[in-house]
Amino acid sequence: MEIITGGICAPKGFKASGIHCGIRKNHDKKDLAMIVSDVTATAAAVYTTNLVKGAPITVTKDHLSDGLAKAVIVNSGNANTCNSDGREVAEKMCGFVEKYAGVKAKDVIIASTGVIGQKLDTTPIENGMTELTQALSYDGCSDAASAIMTTDTVPKVIAVSFTVGGKEVKLGGIAKGSGMIHPNMATMLVFLTTDCAISSRMLQKALSTDIASTFNMVSVDGDTSTNDMVCIMANGLAGNELINSEGEDFDEFMKALNTVNMFLCRSIAADGEGATKLVECTVNGAPNIEIARGAAKSVITSSLVKAAMFGADANWGRVLCALGYSGLDLDPDEIDVSFISKKGEIVVCTGGRGVDFSEEKAKEILLEDEITIKVCLNSGSVSATAWGCDLTYDYVKINGDYRT
Amino acid sequence: MEIITGGICAPKGFKASGIHCGIRKNHDKKDLAMIVSDVTATAAAVYTTNLVKGAPITVTKDHLSDGLAKAVIVNSGNANTCNSDGREVAEKMCGFVEKYAGVKAKDVIIASTGVIGQKLDTTPIENGMTELTQALSYDGCSDAASAIMTTDTVPKVIAVSFTVGGKEVKLGGIAKGSGMIHPNMATMLVFLTTDCAISSRMLQKALSTDIASTFNMVSVDGDTSTNDMVCIMANGLAGNELINSEGEDFDEFMKALNTVNMFLCRSIAADGEGATKLVECTVNGAPNIEIARGAAKSVITSSLVKAAMFGADANWGRVLCALGYSGLDLDPDEIDVSFISKKGEIVVCTGGRGVDFSEEKAKEILLEDEITIKVCLNSGSVSATAWGCDLTYDYVKINGDYRT
Repeated sequence: MEIITGGICAPKGFKASGIHCGIRKNHDKKDLAMIVSDVTATAAAVYTTNLVKGAPITVTKDHLSDGLAKAVIVNSGNANTCNSDGREVAEKMCGFVEKYAGVKAKDVIIASTGVIGQKLDTTPIENGMTELTQALSYDGCSDAASAIMTTDTVPKVIAVSFTVGGKEVKLGGIAKGSGMIHPNMATMLVFLTTDCAISSRMLQKALSTDIASTFNMVSVDGDTSTNDMVCIMANGLAGNELINSEGEDFDEFMKALNTVNMFLCRSIAADGEGATKLVECTVNGAPNIEIARGAAKSVITSSLVKAAMFGADANWGRVLCALGYSGLDLDPDEIDVSFISKKGEIVVCTGGRGVDFSEEKAKEILLEDEITIKVCLNSGSVSATAWGCDLTYDYVKINGDYRT
Repeated sequence: MEIITGGICAPKGFKASGIHCGIRKNHDKKDLAMIVSDVTATAAAVYTTNLVKGAPITVTKDHLSDGLAKAVIVNSGNANTCNSDGREVAEKMCGFVEKYAGVKAKDVIIASTGVIGQKLDTTPIENGMTELTQALSYDGCSDAASAIMTTDTVPKVIAVSFTVGGKEVKLGGIAKGSGMIHPNMATMLVFLTTDCAISSRMLQKALSTDIASTFNMVSVDGDTSTNDMVCIMANGLAGNELINSEGEDFDEFMKALNTVNMFLCRSIAADGEGATKLVECTVNGAPNIEIARGAAKSVITSSLVKAAMFGADANWGRVLCALGYSGLDLDPDEIDVSFISKKGEIVVCTGGRGVDFSEEKAKEILLEDEITIKVCLNSGSVSATAWGCDLTYDYVKINGDYRT
C-alpha cells in the first residue's frame, strides 16, 4: 500500500468540485461541494447516534436503502437541523443535483454542516448549481475538501493505492470536523471514494467494522453532533474481481480503509477547535477491547487532562482520575502511565502510584505538538488508541460566539 | 425555616478553626481546618464513586463504620491520593487530632484536597496542630471555610434554623469545590453540622436521599474527583426527641438539609473554575426522574452549551444536541426550550424546531450572571434541576498549569 495524491479524485472515475455560493457571508470561504462518480457506485454509510438528527441524515438513509449512489452534495454554514422544513430542503438539494448534474435524486448522498436551527435558504444553492456542476473535475478534490470546512483550519485529504487480486485499486477520503466531535457509531463528515469493485453488503461491513477503532475513538469536546456521517462510494472501475465475501481481497481493502480512516482521525483531532496539539492515548494490557477503548476515550475526553496538555503540565493524577471515573472495571493499583513525544518517553506513575521524575524532561516532552499518553492496565493483552486534542483559550473563543 | 449566620458553628456545640500551616507556599492562604463537636455525634457520609479513591476517603469510611464521629480534619493543597504512603499519612493526621485535641482517632473524619500524586509531608501539619487546636472557637466557621478552599474564589457557608418536635434545631454547612466537579453519588468536600438528635441510620438515609437531587446534579467540568465527600455530624444538643424513623420530624430535617445543600450546590456551580455565571438547567415534563435528571445534566455538562453561555449566545441548537446524545429515551420533536434570567424569558424552540426570536432580547437575558435553561420534554410531569457554569478562558488558564 502506498500513500498517493489526489484524495477522493485519486480513484478512477470520480470528479469533485467546490464553490462559494453564498450560504456563508464570507466570500473567501467555499460553502458548497459535489462529488460525482462516472458510473453508479455501491455505497455504505454510518450515521450519528444522536436522537436529534439532521434532516440530511434522514434523507441520505432513505437514498442509500438500495446500497447504491452516484453523487454527494454537501453544504457548510448551516446544518439544516431542527428546522420544520428540513426534509423538504434536503430533498430539494438532491433535486438540484438531478436537474443540473443529471444524477437521479435517489442516488444522491446529502450532508449539511454548520449552525443548528436556522432555516437553510436554497436560493443561493440553486443559483450556484451551474457553476458547481461546470467546475466538476478529476482533480477537484481540494476545492471540495475546502468547501466542507467549518471551523477547520486545514483541509483533510488522503488517498492510498493498493492491490486487490492483481489489480491496482485506489481509495481516497476527505473529512470535515473540528468541534462538536465525540462520535458514537458514526462521526463528523467523511466522504470516501474507491474504484474497488465491492458489493454494498461487504462495503457496509468494512465501514461499520473499521469505524469502531477509528472515528469512534476521536473526541474533541465530548459533544456528539446531530449530523455526523461517514460515507463511501465504490464504483468498481479498478476492474478487480468483485469483493462479495470475506477473504484475502476483503482484508486488503480493510487495510487500505483503516489507513485512510486513521489518517483522517488524526487530522481531525489535531485540527480540533482551538487545538495546539494532537493528543493520543494508547491503552495496553486491557482484558478486553471494550475496556481498552473505554479507558482511552475517558482520558482523551477529560477537560482537565486536555487543559494540562495545553499547559504542557505532566499532571498524571488527572489521567488516573479519568480512568477511575470511566465506569469501567479497572484496578487502579495496577496502572502505569507515561508521556511520549518525539523528545522521548517519561514514566510518571507505576502501580497507581507516582514515581520520581524530572519535571524539566516532562516539560520538554509535553511541549511537542504530538503527545502520546501511554497507559498500561497490566490486566490483559488488548490495546486501543483514542485521539483528541488540548483544551485552549481558542476553543472557548471559537465557541463563545460561533453564530456571530 | 430561617437562614441564619454562623455556618457550621451555628448548631450548638460545634467549634471550628482554620490556619496556614505550610502545606501551601502562599502564606496568605489557610491550608488546614478542624471542626470539633463538644460531644460525640452521629455521623453519615457519601463518597466519590471514582475507582481511584483518595487515601482519606478509605480512612474516613473505616472511622464512620460505627456511625459516630466527633471531629473533622481537612487540608488543602495536596489530595493525598495515589501515594504509596497515603493511608499511613491519613491515619497519622487523625492521630494528631487525638494527640492535640483529645478526640479518639477513630472518631475523626479526614479529608484532603489538592494535587493528586504528590507525597503529603505531615511535618507542617504536626507543627501547626497546637495553633489549630488553640484556635478552635464557636465562631471559627469562616476560618475553616477559607482553609478548605483550593481554586475557589469565595468561601461557601450557610446555616438554617428550623423546628423539630417543638425544639429549635440548627443545621450548617461549608463546602469547597471549583474544578474536577462532576459528582456521582457523592461530591466535592462538604461538611455539615447539626445539633439535631437523629440516629446514624436516619442521618445516612437523609443524606443519601438528598444528594441525588443536590450535589449529584452539579457539574463544572465533567471530571468526577477522586476525593469527593459530603459528611454530616449530628450532636443532638438541640434536645429534640431522637429522630429514629420516618415521620414529621424526619421530614422537617430533610427540608432543612435540602435547603442547605441546594444553597451549597448553587454556590459551587457559580464559583466553578473560571466561571462568570451560574447556569441552571430545569427540565420539566419528563416521564420519570431518571430522564429528568439525565437530561438536565447532559445540557449542563456540554462544553458547547457552556461556551455559548460564556458568549451570551442563544445557540439553542447545542441544547437540543446535548439532549439528543444523552442516551435517554427522548422524543426530540416534543422538546421546547427557553432561556430565563432576571431580565425575562425568551422562547427559542418549540416542538424541536426553532422559532423566530429577538436576538437582541436573548442577548440581554444571557448577559446576566444567573441563567436558567428551561427545557420541557412534554412527555410526563416529572422535573429536575442541574447546576453548572460557563466555560471560559480562565478555566483553561487555571487548569493549564494548576501544579505550578
